[in-house]
Amino acid sequence: MKRVLMTGAAGNLGKTMRASLADWADELRLSDIVMVDDLLPNETFVACDLASAEDVMSLVEGCDAIVHFGGVSTENTFDNILNGNIKGTYHIYEAARKHAVKRVFFASSNHVVGFHQRETLLDAHSQMRPDSLYGVSKGFGELLAQYYFDKFGIESALVRIGSCFPKPLNRRMVSTWLSEGDLADLIKKVYAADRLGCTVIYGVSNNASTWWDNRHAKFIGWSPQDSSAVFEHEAYLQEELVDPNDPAVRFQGGIFASDGHFED
Amino acid sequence: MKRVLMTGAAGNLGKTMRASLADWADELRLSDIVMVDDLLPNETFVACDLASAEDVMSLVEGCDAIVHFGGVSTENTFDNILNGNIKGTYHIYEAARKHAVKRVFFASSNHVVGFHQRETLLDAHSQMRPDSLYGVSKGFGELLAQYYFDKFGIESALVRIGSCFPKPLNRRMVSTWLSEGDLADLIKKVYAADRLGCTVIYGVSNNASTWWDNRHAKFIGWSPQDSSAVFEHEAYLQEELVDPNDPAVRFQGGIFASDGHFED
Amino acid sequence: MKRVLMTGAAGNLGKTMRASLADWADELRLSDIVMVDDLLPNETFVACDLASAEDVMSLVEGCDAIVHFGGVSTENTFDNILNGNIKGTYHIYEAARKHAVKRVFFASSNHVVGFHQRETLLDAHSQMRPDSLYGVSKGFGELLAQYYFDKFGIESALVRIGSCFPKPLNRRMVSTWLSEGDLADLIKKVYAADRLGCTVIYGVSNNASTWWDNRHAKFIGWSPQDSSAVFEHEAYLQEELVDPNDPAVRFQGGIFASDGHFED
Amino acid sequence: MKRVLMTGAAGNLGKTMRASLADWADELRLSDIVMVDDLLPNETFVACDLASAEDVMSLVEGCDAIVHFGGVSTENTFDNILNGNIKGTYHIYEAARKHAVKRVFFASSNHVVGFHQRETLLDAHSQMRPDSLYGVSKGFGELLAQYYFDKFGIESALVRIGSCFPKPLNRRMVSTWLSEGDLADLIKKVYAADRLGCTVIYGVSNNASTWWDNRHAKFIGWSPQDSSAVFEHEAYLQEELVDPNDPAVRFQGGIFASDGHFED
Amino acid sequence: MKRVLMTGAAGNLGKTMRASLADWADELRLSDIVMVDDLLPNETFVACDLASAEDVMSLVEGCDAIVHFGGVSTENTFDNILNGNIKGTYHIYEAARKHAVKRVFFASSNHVVGFHQRETLLDAHSQMRPDSLYGVSKGFGELLAQYYFDKFGIESALVRIGSCFPKPLNRRMVSTWLSEGDLADLIKKVYAADRLGCTVIYGVSNNASTWWDNRHAKFIGWSPQDSSAVFEHEAYLQEELVDPNDPAVRFQGGIFASDGHFED
Amino acid sequence: MKRVLMTGAAGNLGKTMRASLADWADELRLSDIVMVDDLLPNETFVACDLASAEDVMSLVEGCDAIVHFGGVSTENTFDNILNGNIKGTYHIYEAARKHAVKRVFFASSNHVVGFHQRETLLDAHSQMRPDSLYGVSKGFGELLAQYYFDKFGIESALVRIGSCFPKPLNRRMVSTWLSEGDLADLIKKVYAADRLGCTVIYGVSNNASTWWDNRHAKFIGWSPQDSSAVFEHEAYLQEELVDPNDPAVRFQGGIFASDGHFED
Repeated sequence: MKRVLMTGAAGNLGKTMRASLADWADELRLSDIVMVDDLLPNETFVACDLASAEDVMSLVEGCDAIVHFGGVSTENTFDNILNGNIKGTYHIYEAARKHAVKRVFFASSNHVVGFHQRETLLDAHSQMRPDSLYGVSKGFGELLAQYYFDKFGIESALVRIGSCFPKPLNRRMVSTWLSEGDLADLIKKVYAADRLGCTVIYGVSNNASTWWDNRHAKFIGWSPQDSSAVFEHEAYLQEELVDPNDPAVRFQGGIFASDGHFED
Repeated sequence: MKRVLMTGAAGNLGKTMRASLADWADELRLSDIVMVDDLLPNETFVACDLASAEDVMSLVEGCDAIVHFGGVSTENTFDNILNGNIKGTYHIYEAARKHAVKRVFFASSNHVVGFHQRETLLDAHSQMRPDSLYGVSKGFGELLAQYYFDKFGIESALVRIGSCFPKPLNRRMVSTWLSEGDLADLIKKVYAADRLGCTVIYGVSNNASTWWDNRHAKFIGWSPQDSSAVFEHEAYLQEELVDPNDPAVRFQGGIFASDGHFED
Repeated sequence: MKRVLMTGAAGNLGKTMRASLADWADELRLSDIVMVDDLLPNETFVACDLASAEDVMSLVEGCDAIVHFGGVSTENTFDNILNGNIKGTYHIYEAARKHAVKRVFFASSNHVVGFHQRETLLDAHSQMRPDSLYGVSKGFGELLAQYYFDKFGIESALVRIGSCFPKPLNRRMVSTWLSEGDLADLIKKVYAADRLGCTVIYGVSNNASTWWDNRHAKFIGWSPQDSSAVFEHEAYLQEELVDPNDPAVRFQGGIFASDGHFED
Repeated sequence: MKRVLMTGAAGNLGKTMRASLADWADELRLSDIVMVDDLLPNETFVACDLASAEDVMSLVEGCDAIVHFGGVSTENTFDNILNGNIKGTYHIYEAARKHAVKRVFFASSNHVVGFHQRETLLDAHSQMRPDSLYGVSKGFGELLAQYYFDKFGIESALVRIGSCFPKPLNRRMVSTWLSEGDLADLIKKVYAADRLGCTVIYGVSNNASTWWDNRHAKFIGWSPQDSSAVFEHEAYLQEELVDPNDPAVRFQGGIFASDGHFED
Repeated sequence: MKRVLMTGAAGNLGKTMRASLADWADELRLSDIVMVDDLLPNETFVACDLASAEDVMSLVEGCDAIVHFGGVSTENTFDNILNGNIKGTYHIYEAARKHAVKRVFFASSNHVVGFHQRETLLDAHSQMRPDSLYGVSKGFGELLAQYYFDKFGIESALVRIGSCFPKPLNRRMVSTWLSEGDLADLIKKVYAADRLGCTVIYGVSNNASTWWDNRHAKFIGWSPQDSSAVFEHEAYLQEELVDPNDPAVRFQGGIFASDGHFED
Repeated sequence: MKRVLMTGAAGNLGKTMRASLADWADELRLSDIVMVDDLLPNETFVACDLASAEDVMSLVEGCDAIVHFGGVSTENTFDNILNGNIKGTYHIYEAARKHAVKRVFFASSNHVVGFHQRETLLDAHSQMRPDSLYGVSKGFGELLAQYYFDKFGIESALVRIGSCFPKPLNRRMVSTWLSEGDLADLIKKVYAADRLGCTVIYGVSNNASTWWDNRHAKFIGWSPQDSSAVFEHEAYLQEELVDPNDPAVRFQGGIFASDGHFED
């Protein structure tokens, strides 16, 4: 990889992946709405509001690949979601089209399917059932990516990221945990594949308990190596008591599914 | 039905359905961004820009049902689609939630699935493959409706309308034609059903050639009565020459699938 | 048909079908736990408690076909269901095996699948989700019939009867109605078919609204001719008000799904 | 249609369809290994052994469409099947490729799927289970057609013809009967369709009993109008006695499935 | 776990699991129709005939969980099956409902699906095809459990146990073997899961050859660790000769599928 | 195994497997159209042109098993394919039938499905889409094997071999590589299985990237042990540049899908 654009570089995923991808790209062009100032030698930073078409257009120019972590990453007001995730994702894909970027890694979310029950095993063909406006906006991004693939041939990995933290923060994350190492490996595999198409991938490690089946993405060759099982005896995961009839337990989206409307 | 809101009342569907639904509702509250002035006794008109949250909120107040025809109805600039279809549909559902409207008829579009090939029979579970930004925005509306159903219990008919005109305008519409009478009957069936859920329905008459299967909506009891077969010997449908390899023929969306980007 | 046994001859289905099948069999051997005394010339009556293995064994002797309407036909105590439907159906199949009856028409029930939601279209391969002990017992009967087919070659029609009355008694039955004529025709088709196998058939007329798809039984050649649509404008069906979130409306089984435990 | 080639013109299907298609093509070029001499004004005849690559190549030259009825039409020696159906079909498709014929109507056969049980409803995606060498050869033809479509863009209708006779000759044909009028209409629909792809179509009328579902071919717009039900009370269909466990009754292929090897 | 009831404690599974679960529950209440007298400190014993509603009702009182191994565990007379498995399972679920037990581990059996062919890979959605009255009775238990879940919210693991022995006893068990350690782990996982629903699980170790796919139960997080492959070179497994056309080899149920009726 | 016939013994697969299977059969009867002269003690050689029915008939006599590697193994003229693969495979199965050979290992090819896209995960039920005349001929062989199973009970493993070489020769083979050890183990497993039926198996090692799912063949107990991942850092695999829109990259068949007609 020569020059890779990473949006959302100041966020949780961005910070972690900068380190993991340090020796992968010749140049990593970081971008966020807030400043990133601890740049490594092969990193550059461009401040950018994804809601601005012009800013995004110039941001993308000259890049060979886009790792799109940017935008709002949890439930928020409709206005913020509209700016960061609806306009923002459109601007990214339009810029990719204009500047001939061929492949996008799009950080979608498990909240696109958060209203499926936990007993339901999902795969890439399962229906979207978002659990939040945030989830709806990520679903919009997936549809947009599919359109840009079908009409313009831009390939995308639509990665429905589970919970990417150093370790599971609660019992739900025992099923949804994605290790940082597995995410970094996925990004590399997405760009190493001869062909990507427009492919839904559940961003989840090789946990014993899972709700998601990546069979339709096996052609990419990603085999996550970590498992949340190494944490399962930790006290904070044992002691939490849950009610199976609580919507936050019944549905895959957790509290996203049980919460009321954000602005109320 | 007591008071029914119809958005997009000045548009193609709106004009036709006003007549068809004249004796169905006690009051038909018409709305559009442009004026409607030939009101019947049981009709009222409220001008409304769907992009305005406040306007939509007051528009919906006091209504028992919403027939949402409004917004942009064909490919357009992203800004227009954003205002009419993204913001607009969000404003409608938020208003429905606040004002306790229980059931929405959402005029979605076949362009949500326009990049499927014609040889592929689709049903309600088929994946969305939009053929245009317009199609993406309708897909957004469907996801939003699903979210409002799963979280707030608002039922929706997601009607992927084919081509609703007095008769098919070209060879493609022999397969996609929806008669005005069948559409009017569908609206009535949607509101007469004991339960609707959040259901995808292909808005298409009982044509001999079809790409869409409404089996998952049979519980509603809609049986379209018309068929485009009565027009199939008309000269303008016979004489048109088509190439099976033209993307406009290969894909269900027709010229939406073959056209380039709107703003280029 | 030479000699046909009809169990449950004093019940609702039995009474109706005696007339419809009058000229179909050389002899109709009627049976019930209560007396039937208005016998036609080609009818005979044998009182029989299905819970008695011996009685059923002699009842079946000499018959060429069994139309098994007998047993408990709605929710009841476990004891009554055990006697009429569990033991009763076992005794019928054991007698069929011993006396070489080759084909059984088994009156199963839609309550075998009553906990599916109304928006779910079922077919013969859908999972059983009974809504009552009665429904569980009919599911037992279907499993037993499958076992007698797989091991002993006895063919069965497992007819999940909807609501067989002269007309729909309530709004739910607009979807589940089975006309008497269509049921009689189904019985004849089941015995006229060259091969039956062990086949699930939804016993429902050609209603506009339906939850059930008989595609896997099309080889039998049954085409129901009646539709509940002829009743849909009757006032008692129009005036009933229902709540889409009431379990009796949400689930296919109606009040069977919403009722508590029978014996409480 | 300008010039249509019909192979197998002296056979059962050929004879019937010549009359039905008389006014459809400007010129009907008939071909068979045996002479056809009662030519109509718009018919020409070219004798041709399908096993000869050269003969077929010149036969096809100048034609706009091919209706390929030719070859062996029932079980036969492997040599005869090899010449008529393996070599013959290859020669037809190679000639179509060389002479730029864009669309082929290929008379395949229900015997491609004859080892499915009668209780199994088949559609275009069902696995092939041929019941004879003849059925295997027709399956070969379907694979070849798919290859010529995927690689060279030649469209084909793979019509698995049931039993095309003036009326059903036996009880099995009550399910498999294809009326001559429905076949003629299918041929016309195949060539009138804007796009055909490479599509499996079961060639069967609108019989009450059926084993085959043409849902994946509904885009073509063929709606068979005839039904074997008009014959079902004829004595010769009533009087035939069948055993449900006879392989000829159990399997869809009838006696093709129960017969031993042809050459033994 | 505080107090766990284990029925069938004197049987094969019961004996083995007592040891495996010794340190898992505060109290293990053992029950069987025959005496268990080698009690460990945290074990108690209550003799109980599952056919007695009253006995079962008092047996269950005060328990937090039920591991239901009890009843007839192989083909038997209908009377014995009726008492142990039909009445017995009903009594267990009724007692669970009355005494608010929230989760049941139900030892179902692979004989619920024993008439599927070995080439058929089954999952939780496959149709039940019991190979014996015993299998039918286990199917009844599964339907009952589903009913108690849908109506009363009692969660169940429906564990279709393969062959739980120290090692495979014959060639068939190379595919069906369930190690004692894997079974014990499954029981713990079933009770540790945040949500269970009513879930079919095939009780089988991680054997190289398998007929069953537990994909729909992956949310529970059970990963069996043992494999029958360690035994595959043992002479008694090598030397057995089998005929692929023997029903005991063709069908998954083995000799259950090939045996005649038990009472004959 | 007593006497095993291996056809195509002089070819790539044959040479490798002779060594791997050396101690497996009492006698390995090798055959090819070209001479094999480095015979091991338990090997015999019979020269045979598969196109000759008589030669094949005598070749097969006295064998207990057939490993059929013979015929044309890549795209070729139709005549060569007809002789080697169409006639040849027919002769093998006819000889198996006449000489009561019960089980055949048929070396089919991934080119039977080579026109599926790489993003499509295939299993044994996927439709055949051959990428070449060679692929069509292997599909013919599979249909023939199915016919000989359904009618005569001869069991077959239809092994769609990927790329069996000491290591992957290009980037495509990272996904399709089959190690020699895994192939040898598969042959042994096919003959060790109690029952085989007529089963499609993708002949591919346990590579990280795969397009094929062998779930329907898990009953056989084959667990490939090797993975192409050990080669993935080799320079010749890293340095190859591919275009995702090249048909040779887009389709599974690689250059078989992008090549024109062999004889042109």
